[in-house]
Amino acid sequence: MIPFYRKLPAKGKRSSSLSLSLSKGRESAILFSYPFQLSRSPPRTTPTPTLPRSCYNGCGTLRRIAMISLLTDFGIKDTYVAELKLVLLSHGIEQVLDISHHVEAGNPRHGQFLLQSVYQRFPAGTVFLAVVDPGVGTKRAPVAVHLDHHWFVGPDNGLFSFACKGKTFHIDTDDPLFSPQCSNTFHGRDIFAPAAAGIHNNVNRFLKKTVGLSVVRPISFVEEITALSNGEILHIDGFGNLVTSVRNQLLGRVTLELDGKIIVQSHSTFAEGGDGLFMVPGSKGLIEIVARERRASDILRTEIGTGIEVRIK
Amino acid sequence: MIPFYRKLPAKGKRSSSLSLSLSKGRESAILFSYPFQLSRSPPRTTPTPTLPRSCYNGCGTLRRIAMISLLTDFGIKDTYVAELKLVLLSHGIEQVLDISHHVEAGNPRHGQFLLQSVYQRFPAGTVFLAVVDPGVGTKRAPVAVHLDHHWFVGPDNGLFSFACKGKTFHIDTDDPLFSPQCSNTFHGRDIFAPAAAGIHNNVNRFLKKTVGLSVVRPISFVEEITALSNGEILHIDGFGNLVTSVRNQLLGRVTLELDGKIIVQSHSTFAEGGDGLFMVPGSKGLIEIVARERRASDILRTEIGTGIEVRIK
Amino acid sequence: MIPFYRKLPAKGKRSSSLSLSLSKGRESAILFSYPFQLSRSPPRTTPTPTLPRSCYNGCGTLRRIAMISLLTDFGIKDTYVAELKLVLLSHGIEQVLDISHHVEAGNPRHGQFLLQSVYQRFPAGTVFLAVVDPGVGTKRAPVAVHLDHHWFVGPDNGLFSFACKGKTFHIDTDDPLFSPQCSNTFHGRDIFAPAAAGIHNNVNRFLKKTVGLSVVRPISFVEEITALSNGEILHIDGFGNLVTSVRNQLLGRVTLELDGKIIVQSHSTFAEGGDGLFMVPGSKGLIEIVARERRASDILRTEIGTGIEVRIK
Repeated sequence: MIPFYRKLPAKGKRSSSLSLSLSKGRESAILFSYPFQLSRSPPRTTPTPTLPRSCYNGCGTLRRIAMISLLTDFGIKDTYVAELKLVLLSHGIEQVLDISHHVEAGNPRHGQFLLQSVYQRFPAGTVFLAVVDPGVGTKRAPVAVHLDHHWFVGPDNGLFSFACKGKTFHIDTDDPLFSPQCSNTFHGRDIFAPAAAGIHNNVNRFLKKTVGLSVVRPISFVEEITALSNGEILHIDGFGNLVTSVRNQLLGRVTLELDGKIIVQSHSTFAEGGDGLFMVPGSKGLIEIVARERRASDILRTEIGTGIEVRIK
Repeated sequence: MIPFYRKLPAKGKRSSSLSLSLSKGRESAILFSYPFQLSRSPPRTTPTPTLPRSCYNGCGTLRRIAMISLLTDFGIKDTYVAELKLVLLSHGIEQVLDISHHVEAGNPRHGQFLLQSVYQRFPAGTVFLAVVDPGVGTKRAPVAVHLDHHWFVGPDNGLFSFACKGKTFHIDTDDPLFSPQCSNTFHGRDIFAPAAAGIHNNVNRFLKKTVGLSVVRPISFVEEITALSNGEILHIDGFGNLVTSVRNQLLGRVTLELDGKIIVQSHSTFAEGGDGLFMVPGSKGLIEIVARERRASDILRTEIGTGIEVRIK
Repeated sequence: MIPFYRKLPAKGKRSSSLSLSLSKGRESAILFSYPFQLSRSPPRTTPTPTLPRSCYNGCGTLRRIAMISLLTDFGIKDTYVAELKLVLLSHGIEQVLDISHHVEAGNPRHGQFLLQSVYQRFPAGTVFLAVVDPGVGTKRAPVAVHLDHHWFVGPDNGLFSFACKGKTFHIDTDDPLFSPQCSNTFHGRDIFAPAAAGIHNNVNRFLKKTVGLSVVRPISFVEEITALSNGEILHIDGFGNLVTSVRNQLLGRVTLELDGKIIVQSHSTFAEGGDGLFMVPGSKGLIEIVARERRASDILRTEIGTGIEVRIK
């Protein structure tokens, strides 16, 4: 994980510094301080669900940057992403990082994979606003899940299955945080964005503890060699590379079969490959099926969710 | 409208706070203050066109956040959007929100619809830099329109028809704000962006009052039931949903006919629909023609601007 | 170039002001000051490669804004751009401007053109993080080039040929700035982003001076009239306009032949054109082949890199 925990410089040390302070009555704490030293140690205190964004954690040495991060299937041609960001802005939140707005439309499992593949790289306290919501307006619950110092806000439709061990809360949309003119077709704007903003701003009266997620469909990764394992295509990236559910550590020891085609070759870089399809160790820790200077997805004409038979080489 | 007006906490109240102050000689005013209380009351004073961005409005209690928001038909593959943002940055403006860069190329009417559908959600004082400009370099005037505490900057080609009741100004490009090396093919960068930045920064000597917009082609919405009304497809969104010009309140009481196909069914959510096309209440207050787990635009193969016959059911 | 150098207001002048200060022991300097006056004069001191980001340059009057700007062929559907930005955030860098993530996949020459066409518009001190890297994981070196007060960080594969007269440094990836778990397939995240962040933050121990770039393939522009010159299509923009390598000053005096088709007509704006293809003066200083209300790229069905024969008219 990227280290976002920072030690303050020792007192009395003379160095260039820039700081932004937070005051409470006569006491004050430093909200932002430059320079900082990166520390790879984990946070010393576990934040409780009621304190998602801690700037000053009591021990005087650790700081966290908190933000809201977006993952949707909206695309970027419409005004929808801007409408989400306007809601966040209206709650004073300007620090927003887009993960992607190109989750396959209406495919929470694809959204789950993308989110799962990156969330641990984010600083503690990040609130993920994730909207892949084909059941918008129906009885599927709006939820917030707290796991590993992160919050996940969105629909209970499997999108957060990887976080099913976290604490789960239903979002009470009767709370005054939410407009009475809630639409039936854009809960991202009308429910999830205000909820994410509320959590970010440490407002939590609308969170109702529940036993867990209703829909849990986690992704299985192939981690060990067996005679035959079942994997799948989890993602097709912008270069046409096929991201599989098979861990990089199996590279060179397995063959992959999908759509009647068997991939045997593996290389450590794209440039070493020959004419056909081959495997490389992917940047998400998962084997990718690629082609040199061509799009593997054009050769295989496969799609997200296609099964893969993984065999010992 | 989203409440962007904020009350300062009462004096003497002890609470966590973060503030950024603005000083003028010995007087000073608070530019940004956290926490704030959201207030849904309208601004107490009407800003004049010469004061587009008021941080401190004299009554000591209300604040507004101002920003520049972009709407273009540039797409995002080129360097054009970055070139706009660089001009804004060179005038000290970092707070920019992209509405969309995917207005249908050269279609100011489509741009008008997208802008009209969201501008009221923005905080007062927002400057909209809107560039859908097939007549770039010709005699169509560069204009700035002031309406409802917002500014709209772009070409006078119908893009701002919905704001035709606002105060209209021609932009005098002989002003030193504009480079003498103005291109003929990118007025977004060379005229509209500096003009928007100037207005945002309260520079207005280049604004010349004029009688009104030359091109006014407002969109007609179908708001009441008649035997037969003429509507149109205003937008096709990233999910393939067709946004019509028929208000949501007519849902269930009308049929829509377009391209020889009649849509009769309506549901309150996407998930309730059956196999064919049906109507849902859209998030922009307008009926959308959709299909369940399919793209309505693939079924109808229609395009933006297609006429719709709206009949009593 | 856009003026980013700013004079501070004269002392004692009473005006509205907003400032952010930087302290070093008992001395302090103003980091950001509003209002500022734009100055078109060049910086009075030449920054050395060891001081890429100077907020306070010693003479007390000039300021520079520094940022990181991104150019990649990643597209925006994946999590890759977010992963770059997370690395930058982990080094305290929030000010990032995307130039484009749609360089033609694996085409450093196309990336070179886009970067070359805009970099001079950026403020001095900008660090360009450019990743078009088909040879990722092979022996092609990771480099940083310092030219004209700018830094360019990316692979040594021709992408920075236009900057070959700058000072070139190899990036020592054994430095603790870089994670020991560097991937073979995403050096943008694991090498170039931390390197760009280091340079931005004035950390430079990982930069090893070298004699120059290994791969230098600069773009030739047609600047003078000859009986016959060879040009090329450098870019196809979102409107389908073909950006050529022929300078605007030759407009009206040359014909262009490509793919067996000869373009003779030229106009000063898009709207003046007739039915067929014609030339206009492009916003990058280069002639563009366009069509009125149509996509020239659909008519010619050409691609980036296609040769053009430029003849006297």
